[in-house]
Order: sequence, then C-alpha cells, then structure tokens
Amino acid sequence: MKDFDFISPTKIYFGLNKEELIGSIISSYGFKKVLFHYGQNSIKKIGLYKKVINSLKKSKIKYVELGGVLPNPDVDLVKEGIRICKENDIEMILAVGGGSVIDSGKLIANGYYYDGNPFDISTHKYVSQKSLPIGVILTNSASGSELSNSCVISSREMKMKQGYNTDLNRPLFVIENPKLTFSVDLHTTGCGVVDIFSHTFERYFCQSDKMEFSDYLAEALMRNVLDNGKRLAKNLKDYNARANIMIASSFSHNGLTGIGKNIMMPIHKLEHELSALNPSIAHGEGLAILIPSWMEICYHLSPAKFVGFAENVMKIDKNIPDYEKIEEAIKGLRQFFSLFKLKTHLNEFGITKDDVQTMTDVIIGKQIKMFDIDSEIDYNLAMKIYLNCLGE
Amino acid sequence: MKDFDFISPTKIYFGLNKEELIGSIISSYGFKKVLFHYGQNSIKKIGLYKKVINSLKKSKIKYVELGGVLPNPDVDLVKEGIRICKENDIEMILAVGGGSVIDSGKLIANGYYYDGNPFDISTHKYVSQKSLPIGVILTNSASGSELSNSCVISSREMKMKQGYNTDLNRPLFVIENPKLTFSVDLHTTGCGVVDIFSHTFERYFCQSDKMEFSDYLAEALMRNVLDNGKRLAKNLKDYNARANIMIASSFSHNGLTGIGKNIMMPIHKLEHELSALNPSIAHGEGLAILIPSWMEICYHLSPAKFVGFAENVMKIDKNIPDYEKIEEAIKGLRQFFSLFKLKTHLNEFGITKDDVQTMTDVIIGKQIKMFDIDSEIDYNLAMKIYLNCLGE
Repeated sequence: MKDFDFISPTKIYFGLNKEELIGSIISSYGFKKVLFHYGQNSIKKIGLYKKVINSLKKSKIKYVELGGVLPNPDVDLVKEGIRICKENDIEMILAVGGGSVIDSGKLIANGYYYDGNPFDISTHKYVSQKSLPIGVILTNSASGSELSNSCVISSREMKMKQGYNTDLNRPLFVIENPKLTFSVDLHTTGCGVVDIFSHTFERYFCQSDKMEFSDYLAEALMRNVLDNGKRLAKNLKDYNARANIMIASSFSHNGLTGIGKNIMMPIHKLEHELSALNPSIAHGEGLAILIPSWMEICYHLSPAKFVGFAENVMKIDKNIPDYEKIEEAIKGLRQFFSLFKLKTHLNEFGITKDDVQTMTDVIIGKQIKMFDIDSEIDYNLAMKIYLNCLGE
Repeated sequence: MKDFDFISPTKIYFGLNKEELIGSIISSYGFKKVLFHYGQNSIKKIGLYKKVINSLKKSKIKYVELGGVLPNPDVDLVKEGIRICKENDIEMILAVGGGSVIDSGKLIANGYYYDGNPFDISTHKYVSQKSLPIGVILTNSASGSELSNSCVISSREMKMKQGYNTDLNRPLFVIENPKLTFSVDLHTTGCGVVDIFSHTFERYFCQSDKMEFSDYLAEALMRNVLDNGKRLAKNLKDYNARANIMIASSFSHNGLTGIGKNIMMPIHKLEHELSALNPSIAHGEGLAILIPSWMEICYHLSPAKFVGFAENVMKIDKNIPDYEKIEEAIKGLRQFFSLFKLKTHLNEFGITKDDVQTMTDVIIGKQIKMFDIDSEIDYNLAMKIYLNCLGE
C-alpha cells in the first residue's frame, strides 16, 4: 500500500429545507459579510434565491451578489469576484449552485490573496498559500466539487481549460437538500450520475497498489449509484434516490475511494480533449461514451480486476466464463447509461476519424497514461479507445 | 432518509515512519508547546518514545510529559493533565497510544477550558464549548477514537464509566504507521478487530431508515475487516493487512457508515455492563461473545437484513434457504472470532445466571433498546441475549 495523507474537513448539513438555515450557519462560524455567488436563472426559478436572501437578512449577514457563472466557468468572472471581495472586505464565499459555481468560487477564494492574474493559480505559476473560506448550497449532484480539492476554470481568452488541486479548495461546509435537485432534467441528471460513477470507477481501476479498504468502498459506492440511478431515471422526484446520489457525489471525489492508491484519471482526461474539441458534448455524456469503450480496449491488460468489477458491482453471474462476465458488465453499463437517453457514439456529435487523430496527438503530447500508473504512455491505446467510440 | 450533519475533519498522515515527522507536523500548525501524553511502557519498548522526543527536539517543540494512562482511563490522571497544561501554557495535546490514551487526552483538551471537575463533561453536567487541539500517533487499531467524536472516561472513585460525544473531540490529525502495531499480540489484535467490526456492524443493523449509501459502505468495510483480519491472525506482521485494519478502524467509528440513519449501539451497551461487572473481560472479547448471541436472538425481528448481511458480508451461498444463510453467517462469524483465540462464552469468565439478572436490570433501567430505534424497550430480549452467551 502507498503512503498517503488524507483530509476531508467539509461539514455536511443534509436534509429537507436545510438551505433555510444558511444565515444562522454562516453566523455560527462568525462571518458577517459574504459574496453570494451563483449561476443563471435556475436558483430563482426554484425559489432558492429568495430563500437564501431571506435567511441572510434574518441573520443580519451582509452580502454582495455575483451571479452569471456559466458552464465551463471563465476566469474573467473570477477576476470580477476578487475585485468585489477586496472592495467590500468579504469574509466568505457562498457558492449556490453546481460544480461550475463552486469552482468559480474556489478560484475567487484563492485569488483573493494573490495580486496577479488568478489564472496563474490554475496554471501552477503561483501556488496558493491561503484562501477565503467557501460555503456551498448544492443544486446539482455531479462534480463532487462540494468536498473535493479540485477546481477547473477556463480562460476563453487564452483558449485553455485548467484544473488545479489544493486542500485549500475544500469547502468549509455544504448544505445538501436533495429536493433542490428535483428540477434537474433527465439528461443533466444522467450526466451527473455518470460523472459521479466515473470518479470512483477511475479510482477503482488504478490498481498498482492492493488496497481492499478503498476497493471495497469503491464497489459499494458504484453499486449505490447504479441502484439509485435506475430509480431516478424512472422518477426524477424520488427523494431517497436523489439523496443517495447526492451523498455519493460528495464522497466519490473527496479522495476516500482512492485512499492508499496512486490515482490518475485517464477517462476524465480523454473526455477533457473531447469537450475541448466540441463544447456541445456535456462532460457526463462524453464519459458515458468513453467508459465502455475504455473497458473494451483495456480489459485484456488486467482481466482479474474487470472480473471483480463485473461480479461485485454489476452483479454478473459468477458461473459464466470470465470474458463473458466482462462483456456482460460492459453491456450492463451501456444499458444503464441509456436509461438517461444519453448519446452512445461520437459520430452523433459529428466527430470524425481526423478529430480522433487530433485528440490522440494532444493527449499523448500531455504524456497521459491510458490504463495504470505502471503502464506505458501508449499512442495506439489512446487512438483505439477514441476510434472505438466513433460508431458506424 | 433521516436528515443529518456530518463532519470528520481529522487529517490522516498514513505510512511507514510517518511518526518521525511529528515535530514538523506540529510546527506546520504553528504550535510550539505540547503535552506528550502516553500510557505505560509499550511505546518505550517499540522505540517510539525516543523517536517522538527526537522529532520534537529537532523541530524545537517544547513538551511536558504525562505517561501512565491505564486501560479504562481514569479522571484523576485527566485532572493532573489539565493542571500541567494550565501551568505550562500548553497549546496542543499529543496523544501517543491507543483508545485509552486518546480518550484521556480528549478530556484533558476539553477540561482545559472548564474550571470544575472534568468528569462533569463526561456526565453531561457541563457542555464543553471549546477545547485544545489534539494530535495522535496511533499504536493500536481498535477504538476508532482517532477520528471519532466520542470519549469514554472512568471515575474509579465514583465507580462510573461514562462516555460523551462532541465534535470538539475529533482530533486535528492522526499519524498512522501500520508497523507501530506489529507488536500487538494475537489476543489484543483480535479484540481490536472485533471492536472495529462491531462499530460498523451495529450501525448497519440500525435499520429504520433505508440508506443504500451507508449500508453498502458498511458491508464493504466489514468485508475488508474479515478478509484482512484472517490474514492478520495468520501473520501479525503482515503490513498490508495491518494497514487495511488500521484505516478501517478510523472510518468504522467516525460516523461515515451511519450517515442518514438513527444510530444506537445496543451490543456496545450490553458489553459495557459486562465489563463493568467483570473488568477482566476485554471490550473486544465481550463484543465477540455478544455479537453472535444478539444475532441468534434478534434475527427473527427482521430476517431480510440478516439475509443481506449473510450474502453480502459473509458471502454465504445465495441458493440455500434464508434461515440457513443466517445460521451459516453466525457460524462464520464465530469461526472468524475464534481465529484470535478469544473466549466464546461468559461462563469462562465465571459469569452466572444471577449476574445476567443484575446486568439486565441495569441495562433496562437505562432504557436501552436491544434491536432498533423503532423497537420496544424489552426486558426479555436483553435477558435472552445475555443468557444465550452463558454457555453450558
């Protein structure tokens, strides 16, 4: 087992109407002035915006608003946020939304203590030493950013999308009310479910280090996502299913299921090139196409782990031959993703063989390994995985 | 699903020789003066005492020593600790040991800010509002106190053993080096393994609220304890097995596997009466006798959950009748506990039917439920569980 350090200090306030406590929760930490950061209109549509304002006012928390965060949040709005925080002596960032809003808030929080371009933190030119505390009200279960150490920000000007990790990015607290996700549509719900699944799936298949603790927990978390994902696909307003998916979102990307292992996320990296090439591909939809393809191309590299996945996660009959188990597991995953009406092949997005060549060049140029920490950097493997996604 | 708040902020530094970093870790938090709190001679025997002193000196951390913590730590030593901390302007408690040392350190940390008898905190006469930070170097995998919010202290003078829970009890950090547990003998190792198993087992069987997330994680954690416990029983110096058990210890009692559920710990409570009556019964050994007995007496109350346990944790053949599955699961657990040469019946400790009567009177007097939050307080059930432990 690999040595490791682990911390996940975020306090979770979970349950119905917990967002109404936001003012008193902020007060309990002693903060009096916050940046109320959010996205577009959805929090107004579901009545959350008003609830937050009312609760802040009730607890005499002063706030400055900054809405307008877009998917793939841009550093320009981050700069605006930092300016507002400095001018108003803001003590805490309150991010109300999903991964994009949280990540935008994270870079504001880190950039507050840095006088240069905050994108320098994303590109590792400057290493953040300090940050403002961040509180979150979660409205979409997907990225896991509410507990994670990661933050992904784009610079449209520089044509870059860049992630960086630091424990300073871990929020102080998150409020999770499953009902706040009831209005998320089938497609977006599915993209979230796939993203959550993938965060643990990719940790599970980092296999250089034997670590039952993490692997068994990973199997458990994936089973939970499968079982409750199926329920959600039938009924988007199933409270218990929403709740199980929401808490799985948080623990799928906080590091728990990767404890004691060398973690790399090849499928996430393959997907980043995909949505960089064609931004109309939602992250989760790209992952849903890539995961089965990656399995088909890679399983011969270490069949035993794939058999374990088939038996313990996908619950495939143990009495059939190993390769059939793996095939059944891949088929089962494809069926699961199809419940959310996600596209299944890249040609449905107009991606061509030439595009595959381009993406493969880029990803191999970044020295990304496709299978495991001990595997080679393999051009052909990357190419095969993408080609296998194209479809007829 | 039940609403909940959850926090587990402790940073884990895990791996070989990590204890040598103790000085620089304390420095990184800005502390300069600590109480070095430990038990008896074992940390000297394994060379840990010297390593700690050397590391503290190297990082110019001043320290005052307080050794001598005994199993079932007493409030008198806690008072001594508080006096030392106050006289020396101690900034942090460094607890080097297992559950007893950590718990003694926790009450010192809380009592530091209270001028009365620290046992008032244990008996809930005074609610702690603030505490000194606690750092831990763990030398035994068992209690889970290194991440938990609980603290159990005895007052020999008042003939009481008393637990209290507060998030202030959660340590700031813990150093976990599996090798530091190599010298723990088979019996004590077994007691630890049973305690770890029980912390999750009891959460799992609190079943009023359906919560796949927690239940699947619980199954995973118990499987890990079974698999690695078996390896440990064969070879007490198996690093990976020690490592998996150590990390399971931490996550078995930090609340993770009880998320979203109403938690009561009936078997722990049955055991407290047992070791109160006869202090020569080690906590884990008492649990090992009680768990199978509790299962035999209670399974008819909710067979489905026991069948799930049999299939998913004990890996009993799914094709045999349900009641056979449960019986096989109980038999399997007894076999597992026997690997550590733990006693199997209470008559081996000289416990009699009269003692059972006494213990049943006490535990029912405390209004403890034997099965689930929705069950009755049932005198006969408690009596049956104890009687079933007696043996021929």
